[in-house]
Amino acid sequence: MSYPNYGYGAPPAQPPFGAPNAPYAPYGAPAAPYGAAPVGDKPHKPPKDQAGAGAYGAAVPPPTASMPFANPFAALMPSQFPPGTDPNLVSCFQMADQDRSGFIDDKELQRALSTYNQSFSIRTVHLLMYMFTYINTRKIGPKEFTSVFYSLQNWRAIFERFDRDRSGKIDANELRDALLNLGFAVSPMVLDLLVSKYDKSSGGGKATAAIKAIEYDNFIECCLIVKGLTEKFKERDTMYSGSASFTYDGFMLTVLPFLIA
Amino acid sequence: MSYPNYGYGAPPAQPPFGAPNAPYAPYGAPAAPYGAAPVGDKPHKPPKDQAGAGAYGAAVPPPTASMPFANPFAALMPSQFPPGTDPNLVSCFQMADQDRSGFIDDKELQRALSTYNQSFSIRTVHLLMYMFTYINTRKIGPKEFTSVFYSLQNWRAIFERFDRDRSGKIDANELRDALLNLGFAVSPMVLDLLVSKYDKSSGGGKATAAIKAIEYDNFIECCLIVKGLTEKFKERDTMYSGSASFTYDGFMLTVLPFLIA
Repeated sequence: MSYPNYGYGAPPAQPPFGAPNAPYAPYGAPAAPYGAAPVGDKPHKPPKDQAGAGAYGAAVPPPTASMPFANPFAALMPSQFPPGTDPNLVSCFQMADQDRSGFIDDKELQRALSTYNQSFSIRTVHLLMYMFTYINTRKIGPKEFTSVFYSLQNWRAIFERFDRDRSGKIDANELRDALLNLGFAVSPMVLDLLVSKYDKSSGGGKATAAIKAIEYDNFIECCLIVKGLTEKFKERDTMYSGSASFTYDGFMLTVLPFLIA
Repeated sequence: MSYPNYGYGAPPAQPPFGAPNAPYAPYGAPAAPYGAAPVGDKPHKPPKDQAGAGAYGAAVPPPTASMPFANPFAALMPSQFPPGTDPNLVSCFQMADQDRSGFIDDKELQRALSTYNQSFSIRTVHLLMYMFTYINTRKIGPKEFTSVFYSLQNWRAIFERFDRDRSGKIDANELRDALLNLGFAVSPMVLDLLVSKYDKSSGGGKATAAIKAIEYDNFIECCLIVKGLTEKFKERDTMYSGSASFTYDGFMLTVLPFLIA
């Protein structure tokens, strides 16, 4: 049986998948890739007696410290504005947070953003909240609000730069360049999927003779989805090899929050 | 560095990750797991010169025959009703397919299903169409229509069986039993995510004192999502080990169609 090696950065000659404490030196990987466990970390024994439980995914062990995933039910920690935050941003947050709880919810965020940016659907707002907290509670604090705001400002600037003819839309090639500018190199098929879905003229996935293109609000949703999925993938790609391994439960817990955001 | 072994079915002692033609004998795996490449399959050389391209996911190679993924842009093949299909079902399809193209689209399916089942949101209909074709075109033929119909009938029966008090809702424990009955053993956290999201009384993810529960239309969406994600995971879990490996591009192409269905 062959197992092709994918992705950028050639894989190590003898990858230590499943082999505790094996040495590795992946070509092109940073000296200490994000998320990698400390060298002296204790090996984990594989759980026993977990075969053949009938239904797919039976007997899922709990996550361990060396391969954690975020608890989507964790409480959102109270936060403060970073020093030097634009006072307009602070007052915008405070106007939205009428009960002074220190948090704003989805509808309040939708209203707050509409004063600075274009309007966003509640679905996009939910995605925004999830991507900047990675927990399933639909509220954000000052820290997350600031990140959301500056990310939107950055994405707006990138959209305008790549919308060269000022049509208010960017096509698949421009989307590729915009995402590359944000640090995401997605394949032509991924770009095609995104643009086919979000092109409003084509009626959802149907081919048309015209060049497909997406508008600003959907560009933001593309940025959010690509950013979020890439970050979650990178958490699992501990060797920076371009390949990541998921347990069934880890896969479900990674993907589901995006689907139900 | 340790790399914990997860999931049911103990992993092989020396997994052949990245090592072409290495022998393997995973404990608890079937003799010929679905999707496994033939033994005599040629090894793939790792692509050269793919390190350090800057952006994450740069230089993604095309999929290869031994680890394929479905082309989401493939054309839907014309199909026929299986022998013995309920004539009511055939005439329902034909009424929807007014131009006799042999296919019905999303709005037509939504209308057709509402005569047999409860009404579904267009989002649920899109998920249904994607789950029964795994391509991104929003139309289905007689074969897929039949599968959709009998699956909905089965899911309706399961919902009614587990809605023991006839409240029209099932809670997390009942959802667990219902999904188990369909062959899916999902973890308590996955169940909690699903029920928290779809519980209409709680206002989307917020904790309430009442027991959370979901109604029939959202139960169908849960079934669709769990079925779809599990099937896609199993395609990659070629050794039936409870663990699956994805390239960055494979991960994106697996997850995106669910997100944008």
